[in-house]
Amino acid sequence: MYRFEPNLRIPGPTHLPPGVREAGGRQMINHRGPEFAALMARIDRRMRVFFGTEQEIILLTAAGTGGLEAAVVNTLSPGDRVLAMPTGAFGDRFAKIAGVYGADVTRLETEWGRAADPAALRAHLAADADYRAVLLTHNETSTGVTNPVAALAAVARELAPGALILVDGVSALGAVPFEMDAWGLDVVITGSQKAWMAAPGMSMIALSERAWAAAEEARMPRFYFDLREARKSAASGQTPWTPAVAVMYQVDAGLALMEAETPAGVFARHAACAAATRAGLETLGFRLLADPAFASNTVTAAWIPEDLDWKTFNGELKARQVILAGGQGKLKGKIFRVGHLGAVNLDDILGAIGVMEEVALGLGRPAEPGSAVGAAQRAVLAAGEIHPVAAQGAPA
Amino acid sequence: MYRFEPNLRIPGPTHLPPGVREAGGRQMINHRGPEFAALMARIDRRMRVFFGTEQEIILLTAAGTGGLEAAVVNTLSPGDRVLAMPTGAFGDRFAKIAGVYGADVTRLETEWGRAADPAALRAHLAADADYRAVLLTHNETSTGVTNPVAALAAVARELAPGALILVDGVSALGAVPFEMDAWGLDVVITGSQKAWMAAPGMSMIALSERAWAAAEEARMPRFYFDLREARKSAASGQTPWTPAVAVMYQVDAGLALMEAETPAGVFARHAACAAATRAGLETLGFRLLADPAFASNTVTAAWIPEDLDWKTFNGELKARQVILAGGQGKLKGKIFRVGHLGAVNLDDILGAIGVMEEVALGLGRPAEPGSAVGAAQRAVLAAGEIHPVAAQGAPA
Repeated sequence: MYRFEPNLRIPGPTHLPPGVREAGGRQMINHRGPEFAALMARIDRRMRVFFGTEQEIILLTAAGTGGLEAAVVNTLSPGDRVLAMPTGAFGDRFAKIAGVYGADVTRLETEWGRAADPAALRAHLAADADYRAVLLTHNETSTGVTNPVAALAAVARELAPGALILVDGVSALGAVPFEMDAWGLDVVITGSQKAWMAAPGMSMIALSERAWAAAEEARMPRFYFDLREARKSAASGQTPWTPAVAVMYQVDAGLALMEAETPAGVFARHAACAAATRAGLETLGFRLLADPAFASNTVTAAWIPEDLDWKTFNGELKARQVILAGGQGKLKGKIFRVGHLGAVNLDDILGAIGVMEEVALGLGRPAEPGSAVGAAQRAVLAAGEIHPVAAQGAPA
Repeated sequence: MYRFEPNLRIPGPTHLPPGVREAGGRQMINHRGPEFAALMARIDRRMRVFFGTEQEIILLTAAGTGGLEAAVVNTLSPGDRVLAMPTGAFGDRFAKIAGVYGADVTRLETEWGRAADPAALRAHLAADADYRAVLLTHNETSTGVTNPVAALAAVARELAPGALILVDGVSALGAVPFEMDAWGLDVVITGSQKAWMAAPGMSMIALSERAWAAAEEARMPRFYFDLREARKSAASGQTPWTPAVAVMYQVDAGLALMEAETPAGVFARHAACAAATRAGLETLGFRLLADPAFASNTVTAAWIPEDLDWKTFNGELKARQVILAGGQGKLKGKIFRVGHLGAVNLDDILGAIGVMEEVALGLGRPAEPGSAVGAAQRAVLAAGEIHPVAAQGAPA
């Protein structure tokens, strides 16, 4: 059946709501003028809520990977000992960036699909706690695992109190509860094209007081990503280099929607869509990659069954405009991923699961019309996320 | 008189034409899919014409400053001797980036407002040609001077044949003739928010064969801006990190307009608007900063007269929605700048000059209604750029 708009089920870039699309088409303004300063201030104010911080939010014109690089080069010096806890391709990348800039990186590995284990961190640090920084990934986009950042950070703060805690929060911040200050995190990074419902192009980053102090001492070379310059400019409502103004318009519009929905509403919507995705995929016979105890509310990864011709199956999905993501790194060709973050609603998930069910039937795989979609709906009901009509409120 | 839309006369971000605005509001797509690959390919094909190169155009999600950093860190190693020829704030920045990453930078200075002199370069290199790179600024945005890049490059290639020639082409490429290959340039950088009529967020960069070879040897640390990764991904129609997709939509739309107008048409339009700006400002009694022989076709800088209360004058311009840029670096508070690049038409220039004339009259300054606007129009006529109606063609 023809579909008029793709169902973009990749973990970013995410689908843009109408108001965000409109914002992306606005005319340019002077990036050294008062209208721009007000835009920056609004983003800062609203985004702090989702970071769980009283620190300012610094805006960088870059992909999330640029934000990771900024976190590293602004707080560390060549030769600094760094403990990385990679749990997938993005944790790998974070560790690699630190290494490229001369850090002495120790890797505490976790099997892909499982979460970083606070007990393993405790055991490691008990033997060797002489680190300048610990690198954590909040939500590992490549595996669909949300790591227990609060628990990991608590261990690090206890056993390695001198270590800065740098957290890749790119793909779940804004979609799930997060408390940078309460959890004692030092640097947190996110990206505009994930939960924030905007186009890619901006990375947002916040630093604790001790991270800002570290930025004064850090000796890794940096210019474009020098956060001291960004902070200096932010004090007068500017950025040091010309920013991605239209992406900021969109982030601003997205945050307005998120504020209206309330953080609790945003988080519950993501939890429900994630539960529906997992139940639907499992009913279709897919085995999920992530440890269920740490399954992500923003992206779900599933193994490609050995008896499934993925190219044909995925080709049929694409023909029906359901766009999934593939595996990354060593999981390439072995898994697929379904994004359910940003401007996602149950309709999108039921639609995607329904099309997958239809394609499975068409290819003669064991499937029963309505079973996967039904399982997805039951999962949402179980999560208590289909509200009485009166609770929905009027559209903004 | 109330104005319904600002006349944004800063040298970037520039005014977006309607089709480019619309492109900025488009829905997201999979950045690992065929639609995205086609978008990248179109930008590459159309932009090469304006670079004057057969090399591929690499897209970076960053401001132009990020592009400058990419040029430096991908071709040089710490300790390399570099000759910088700064002619203003952006040339200063280019030299500073090289220094931050450990290059041994020699600065051959030029008075701000004048162009870098090929004879001075010849004299310098005759005495000392042991450089790994020469840093040039094509159009110095802070002074409104377009440096004679072809002549400077010819001297460098003759006397320092081993030196790479890195050119900041951010603020004029696309608006004036440019021949990267014919002039023997090794790295050329530009930015989406300048002549390309798009929002900020992308920097575009091209490397010669010997620059690509240098990228394999260069030892400055880099990850986000590693152009080897960008080239590898580009071969399969992708970028290594999530790109600013909506800005690319806009660059693509802008290039389609530029192709329809023809490069010669684009260049003539900029020349005419620049001539009009210069004549109008001079008639209003402003002394221009730039050496007339090298006056930029994309931005004009003028001294603030000692007897003019700039804050009041500029405040009145702002109230009438004519937005000018101030001075940068050591020219802050001493000059103002008028941008005339990208989607600029004579209407915009006459409007800005007219408002300035009106404000000057209102403040009791010597001015005669119509004289500055008239001078601007005569300058355009002299440039042969008011065409018979038939030559205009139908709108696309």
